[in-house]
Amino acid sequence: MSHLKIDIHTHILPEHIPKWKEKFGYGGFIQLEHYEPCCARMIRDDGVFFRDVEDNCWSPEARMKECDVLGVHVQVLSTVPVMFSYWAKPSDGLELSHFLNDHIAGIVQRFPKRFIGLGTVPLQAPDLAIRELERCKKNGLVGVQIGTNVNQCNLGEPQFVEFFTACQDLGMAVFVHPWEVMGAEVMQKYWLPWLVGMPAETSRAICSMLFSGLLEKLPRLRVAFAHGGGSFPSTIGRIEHGFLMRPDLCAIDNPVNPKEYLTRMYFDSLVHEPIMLDYLLQLVGAERVALGSDYPFPLGELQPGELIESMPYTEDIKRRLLCDTALEWLNLGKEIFL
Amino acid sequence: MSHLKIDIHTHILPEHIPKWKEKFGYGGFIQLEHYEPCCARMIRDDGVFFRDVEDNCWSPEARMKECDVLGVHVQVLSTVPVMFSYWAKPSDGLELSHFLNDHIAGIVQRFPKRFIGLGTVPLQAPDLAIRELERCKKNGLVGVQIGTNVNQCNLGEPQFVEFFTACQDLGMAVFVHPWEVMGAEVMQKYWLPWLVGMPAETSRAICSMLFSGLLEKLPRLRVAFAHGGGSFPSTIGRIEHGFLMRPDLCAIDNPVNPKEYLTRMYFDSLVHEPIMLDYLLQLVGAERVALGSDYPFPLGELQPGELIESMPYTEDIKRRLLCDTALEWLNLGKEIFL
Repeated sequence: MSHLKIDIHTHILPEHIPKWKEKFGYGGFIQLEHYEPCCARMIRDDGVFFRDVEDNCWSPEARMKECDVLGVHVQVLSTVPVMFSYWAKPSDGLELSHFLNDHIAGIVQRFPKRFIGLGTVPLQAPDLAIRELERCKKNGLVGVQIGTNVNQCNLGEPQFVEFFTACQDLGMAVFVHPWEVMGAEVMQKYWLPWLVGMPAETSRAICSMLFSGLLEKLPRLRVAFAHGGGSFPSTIGRIEHGFLMRPDLCAIDNPVNPKEYLTRMYFDSLVHEPIMLDYLLQLVGAERVALGSDYPFPLGELQPGELIESMPYTEDIKRRLLCDTALEWLNLGKEIFL
Repeated sequence: MSHLKIDIHTHILPEHIPKWKEKFGYGGFIQLEHYEPCCARMIRDDGVFFRDVEDNCWSPEARMKECDVLGVHVQVLSTVPVMFSYWAKPSDGLELSHFLNDHIAGIVQRFPKRFIGLGTVPLQAPDLAIRELERCKKNGLVGVQIGTNVNQCNLGEPQFVEFFTACQDLGMAVFVHPWEVMGAEVMQKYWLPWLVGMPAETSRAICSMLFSGLLEKLPRLRVAFAHGGGSFPSTIGRIEHGFLMRPDLCAIDNPVNPKEYLTRMYFDSLVHEPIMLDYLLQLVGAERVALGSDYPFPLGELQPGELIESMPYTEDIKRRLLCDTALEWLNLGKEIFL
């Protein structure tokens, strides 16, 4: 049986990015250097190479062609996390967000059966982030993607409460993706910031949102975490035990057991390991796990949904993982995409 | 059926610790302030409180009494990781190691059926560490406990190869325990350095030892990792996928797939979660998992072996987890303890 397949974790860039350094008068931003018709380099404006990308990173047509081959019906689009640029001046961060969000909104308007859009917001200035959140909603985006920390401030800190409250009130979904990862500076070799730092970052973000009481304050906030929640699900036993043994350290802002939130959050399915997917489903249930592939990047699931489809699950559960959970997280009906 | 129960992850301190600051002329060391007959505070010599401890942290008699109640036959003793003090001057680190190791060796000599000893070594000076490793072996210790990094240098770095080679050649087991954890400075609230940082640290250490080729060079090195390997086992899918997709970043020093090492390392059982223990056993096998409780600390398993005994495993598998794997890791025969 073939299910509607929605991929909640895909990244996209505009084909051409303004030279922000020239415009803003300081550097640190990512540029795209097109060196062949379908190939470009992401390069920081100080000349440091970041990553090679191909046209499936910017062309909706190229993406749809690949999706047709891969059997993916709908992609949830979000920017590439290096674009967050929370370190930029607030007004510049706002302008950058405008630009990226208008691009994604335009694609969704052109191909509403194939793409769903998440915006990015300048969380270095939560008031501006709320303003941009509202604009995103007006332009047809259904949520935002944010980092696991904002200039190393944790998401449960008081300055972000108003922003998350606005997300809940506006019904905007939140996708939390690791960036500016802890420990990157001490493990530069072997891609360890991606392989070790990112999973830890996601656990850091979840723990901060739980222990601070943010999720308790906002029971209707729909928040999903990348990479199957990183190292959080596998260490929830340790986290809960810490909470129970040292409430003087862990329960200072919220008396609720962290396990209570396992079924209030969403997770993508990007764990790369059948028994780990099984673990995640046993822990949080299929109602909380949605296909996410990290398309079009190589650390992602190259055949989106392959792991889910390989599992000995019922068709009902597979439909949940490939489609229904995504729609619930995004608060969208299936009929739009049929 | 009752099995011989060996707990590979327990910490111990001497009852009295010299005032190293006075002796060495600079501070940063941990002192013990006894304020009641069975209670003491671990305090850094600049006055910063670290942790309350009770007499089961220093008294072998108190420990044996508790072990009798808890059904633990043998404890593997190692120092409390805050004592590593890799930041100290090498000769001072050596003196500190001497002191701690002689204390543990003395207990093992007095109670050889109840305790097994691991030493600590001044890894800030690998040549001195090797010298102390040899002394440990002569004094009846069967291995060492080390940190997940040495002043933020990773364990796979070339300066440590000789030390690990000596561990292999001398047949000394290695227990890797997280300390000086990444990200601690940006997540001080909610005990997150323990709940998020420590699991990441252990993955960092394992990845560095794998990708650098250290474990490939030393096939007879017997190395165990605390807390069920931290976040490494749950993210091995991501780690392997990264290795396969970006050999230019991951395979620069070792062409072997990281999954190959899953069955060459040992892990303690301290995961606090039945389905996570199941996951670990499916991944690495019961031959690679040994009871570890983090006794006498509250983040540990308060009833050592309770999780293992609660599982629907065969008696053969339980015996492996409670005893046989530990003996293989330590290269000891069971008869010593009967």
